[in-house]
Amino acid sequence: MKIAIIGGTGDIGEGLALRLARQNDVIIGSRDAAKAAEAANNYNKVLKERGMKDDIRGMSNEDAAKNAEAVILAVKYQVAVPTLDALNKAGALTNQIVITPIVPMTKPKLCAFSPPPCGSATKECCAVITPGVRMVSTFQTLPAPRLANLDDKLGFDVIVCADDEAAKKTVMGLAEQLGDIRALDGGSLEEAPLIESLTPLLINLAIKNKTKPLSIKFV
Amino acid sequence: MKIAIIGGTGDIGEGLALRLARQNDVIIGSRDAAKAAEAANNYNKVLKERGMKDDIRGMSNEDAAKNAEAVILAVKYQVAVPTLDALNKAGALTNQIVITPIVPMTKPKLCAFSPPPCGSATKECCAVITPGVRMVSTFQTLPAPRLANLDDKLGFDVIVCADDEAAKKTVMGLAEQLGDIRALDGGSLEEAPLIESLTPLLINLAIKNKTKPLSIKFV
Repeated sequence: MKIAIIGGTGDIGEGLALRLARQNDVIIGSRDAAKAAEAANNYNKVLKERGMKDDIRGMSNEDAAKNAEAVILAVKYQVAVPTLDALNKAGALTNQIVITPIVPMTKPKLCAFSPPPCGSATKECCAVITPGVRMVSTFQTLPAPRLANLDDKLGFDVIVCADDEAAKKTVMGLAEQLGDIRALDGGSLEEAPLIESLTPLLINLAIKNKTKPLSIKFV
Repeated sequence: MKIAIIGGTGDIGEGLALRLARQNDVIIGSRDAAKAAEAANNYNKVLKERGMKDDIRGMSNEDAAKNAEAVILAVKYQVAVPTLDALNKAGALTNQIVITPIVPMTKPKLCAFSPPPCGSATKECCAVITPGVRMVSTFQTLPAPRLANLDDKLGFDVIVCADDEAAKKTVMGLAEQLGDIRALDGGSLEEAPLIESLTPLLINLAIKNKTKPLSIKFV
């Protein structure tokens, strides 16, 4: 599958790129195409060293999205809507699956879930996408450093919410390509607040209990 | 430890009573003392059959709370504040630890977290307790039927939030008496929304993925 990772130059973008590149055609997007190319180059080095397929490409966000069937929005909450607006303006989103791992979060002392009035970052993103684009909310519980470490087998559950059942199934499949991952159906986009709020919880638990970055398993 | 389970005649009250009775003095509370005595009697039968200590008692909610060091509010969200008010009016709460597993939840199609304006059921309960009472928010992720089945080893994590660190430690200890449980520090009562919203998530995941009642583990 052709996958664009918008904001793929850092944070969970890195791990998603490295892991999805094994079975997919991954394109890193950045506002700065040169930065995207540099990140792609660095990721390919990691893959090559391991004798793995090393064909990640880097492009501007708009070109990355245009060339992809699935678009992962690996950007911070604060720039999510502007990033989608820019993609729309460029006509880069038509009928792709758009995957949002975005979490609205504040950190007074520990982290808090601070959803916008509509209830979730997912819903806020839905309000600005082109009709025909299928939104999928997932990956909020993937800790970036563990994702980027290809020696980490993960062993997590990943929850996937979507209104379009076919898009949900596709993304559940992608999630299971990341490692030893079980993808669970989290319901519709209405249920996205329940998975977005897991991120501040995971961060707080790691801080308070002095553990490695944590993810989640349902038992 | 002397533990009162308010509303201990059903739901997670049953499992908490059966499991905590092994190492504690458990009192079932109900608005109807006779109902509490009947539930206590039924629980004692289960314990006796297993050759375990069978000294659970049943009393009115007020008497149960007065006789306890820790008071678990195992009631539905809708009656939580009225129940606390009644305990206060009877002078039943002075300096106990009050444990709230209460979750404000609605079910349009799947479950949603529907916190009151203050942000959580925990905070709402805090607003009506007597000064000196130490509130602890936990147990939201314990599935009632698995808790009530003493053959289930559980194997979950339980998150505990409190402002009073000593009360938090005490309740983390109680949590670990329930079974193969790891108690995790979830921070202060400010962080309670993040754990209250796990209940609708767990219910939804079990429905959508057709699993047994689920709990959670952080890995």
